[in-house]
Amino acid sequence: MNHLHQAFSVRFTYNVFFTEQLFGHTNPLFGDFLKQQATDETRKKLLFVIDSGVVTAQPTLLADIKHYFAQDADFIEVIDDLVIIPGGEDAKNEPAFVEKIVDAVDRHGIDRHSYVAAIGGGSLLDLVGYAAAISHRGIRHIRIPTTVLSQNDSGVGVKNGVNYRGKKNFLGTFVPPVAVFNDSTFLTTLDDRDWRSGISEAVKVALIKDTQFFEEIEANAQALAARDAAAMQTLIHRCAQMHLDHIASGDPFEMGSSRPLDFGHWSAHKLEQLTNFEIRHGEAVAIGIALDTLYSQQLGWLTEAETNRVLTTLRTLGFSLYHPMLDANKSAGILKGLSEFREHLGGKLTIMLLKRIGLGVEVHEMDTELIRQAIATLRKYELSTTV
Amino acid sequence: MNHLHQAFSVRFTYNVFFTEQLFGHTNPLFGDFLKQQATDETRKKLLFVIDSGVVTAQPTLLADIKHYFAQDADFIEVIDDLVIIPGGEDAKNEPAFVEKIVDAVDRHGIDRHSYVAAIGGGSLLDLVGYAAAISHRGIRHIRIPTTVLSQNDSGVGVKNGVNYRGKKNFLGTFVPPVAVFNDSTFLTTLDDRDWRSGISEAVKVALIKDTQFFEEIEANAQALAARDAAAMQTLIHRCAQMHLDHIASGDPFEMGSSRPLDFGHWSAHKLEQLTNFEIRHGEAVAIGIALDTLYSQQLGWLTEAETNRVLTTLRTLGFSLYHPMLDANKSAGILKGLSEFREHLGGKLTIMLLKRIGLGVEVHEMDTELIRQAIATLRKYELSTTV
Repeated sequence: MNHLHQAFSVRFTYNVFFTEQLFGHTNPLFGDFLKQQATDETRKKLLFVIDSGVVTAQPTLLADIKHYFAQDADFIEVIDDLVIIPGGEDAKNEPAFVEKIVDAVDRHGIDRHSYVAAIGGGSLLDLVGYAAAISHRGIRHIRIPTTVLSQNDSGVGVKNGVNYRGKKNFLGTFVPPVAVFNDSTFLTTLDDRDWRSGISEAVKVALIKDTQFFEEIEANAQALAARDAAAMQTLIHRCAQMHLDHIASGDPFEMGSSRPLDFGHWSAHKLEQLTNFEIRHGEAVAIGIALDTLYSQQLGWLTEAETNRVLTTLRTLGFSLYHPMLDANKSAGILKGLSEFREHLGGKLTIMLLKRIGLGVEVHEMDTELIRQAIATLRKYELSTTV
Repeated sequence: MNHLHQAFSVRFTYNVFFTEQLFGHTNPLFGDFLKQQATDETRKKLLFVIDSGVVTAQPTLLADIKHYFAQDADFIEVIDDLVIIPGGEDAKNEPAFVEKIVDAVDRHGIDRHSYVAAIGGGSLLDLVGYAAAISHRGIRHIRIPTTVLSQNDSGVGVKNGVNYRGKKNFLGTFVPPVAVFNDSTFLTTLDDRDWRSGISEAVKVALIKDTQFFEEIEANAQALAARDAAAMQTLIHRCAQMHLDHIASGDPFEMGSSRPLDFGHWSAHKLEQLTNFEIRHGEAVAIGIALDTLYSQQLGWLTEAETNRVLTTLRTLGFSLYHPMLDANKSAGILKGLSEFREHLGGKLTIMLLKRIGLGVEVHEMDTELIRQAIATLRKYELSTTV
């Protein structure tokens, strides 16, 4: 009964670039990146997959891309057939979109040294990252996130995925991108809901890890709600940094049970599904944060004053903190989110709560009666703060 | 124009266990492994996916499995619904089989801390590894290879994959198993073709890396052809060790262009496809080795004596070294394998050839006229050695 032991490490590196006018003719960033990546003299291919919403908002984008790379034609071939796919959760619900990208990879001979670049919100990036990860056992993929949420959170991370038979992210992999380009120009075309909704992930990471960052968001909440571009850039940069640090310092491919960045997410994921994704991910996260903040207070961990600071900040940012699906059917729907969350992570239930502002602590059970009380408090709070 | 830099390493470890009668009631190996893996007190699930050919060859297998784990019921729950799938290349050609496994994962609530165990040949293991890798962003998977080829080569490595629209391994990922159990009992039920066919991968790795190992295979060729179990165990152990060492010391997830273990494979992959997979992978590799050995001699790298040792060893093992598809249509079909090989790897063409027995060296082009000459030599050699 003998055995052989295998052990190795795989190193992953990538940069998250901050820029504006990525495809502006005088911006060398993207071209320089591709030139530096070249490992041999062969010309590499670059296939773009773009969120249809972005194309609508920026009608010159397709022409800009082709024009931009015309000057780099000696080392990069942009595939003329730009793949356009509807963004939002629909992108992840329809298996035909995975096939559409994989077929384009096949048709255009995109190999493991070529690139697939995705331009869009978090859902589109998740879809493209997944299709790239499974094609030829992984094609280099570049992310160009166009929303606040994807620029400060999901887009800079290592996950991808699509939904399967209605189950969120049931299929996916952990595969880092080779580069992320955060172009602030895209944010100017967002509607208010998309502008706001990404901020909740920054509130989340601040609450569990960084008191000072929370205080900055608290101080800038009105400016952020009023679409102050400089305040938003500061927030995105800091949040992206924290997200990257968390991945690098912990368990990048989540082989353990712990998932601290999912503070507020057990209910948020379920609420998205219960509302048929009418509510944005970031909007659901704001509610999930509020719920688990109240729950933390009920445990005696947070003071009432701390709890109010959290709720007030979220409200000042413009978030609603209650949705009727929270207590529909005696909260049976939302409570099912707990068991689904455990199942998706595997092992025993692990939920992050707040010991104080800036310090998250994990627990392994939640009391359904206390959850119902927190929901009731949220409903009253929402009514009292809505004019 | 600032940026954030991300860098991290992910550590992968697993054991390849050598045993017999894995599901024998007195063999503690599998149960002990699962007990040692336990990270918390929750009972883990174990879903088996089994090659139908193995079930036919070992009619008591399903009962043996259930009986075996009955004693471990306090920490492991074997899913009663054992998934049976036809083995061989068909397993990888039919998208419905991926769905069948993913649906079983969903139906039985297999989470990221539970296990999917695959029992079968290389194709079945590739299929199950892929389905496990994409479910919940990766479920722990265990490989129980039942053929020589999978026990000494693919089954101990880090790749998985399925075919897509007829393109071999077009979809797949790099994800190590959490354990491999090489059970020699399975080998006794193999037919002669499957017994023999895995030996070619051992010849291959010996030729490019280890003169002494080649000499051992050469010395044992008759015993191996006569199904000497001890000689086969020695070969599998040594070959698996070399395969593991290669992965750990090089580029485990093949981010570069080089793929030295693909010696003889550019033509082998194509020959499998051209023969509609009537020829086994290992049989095609034997022909591919013979072809690139002759090519190496034509370059003046190998002596005629060395070349003859290689061809004689392969013949003594029982391999045919020629197939009519090699020169059908003026070799147009087989030569297309070169460009497809480059495309699958990406970057520039990189082919391993032999500088001498035990030393492979990479080249970046092959001369089609020299390839045709090597094919002609193989045809004559085959005729001259066939009684």
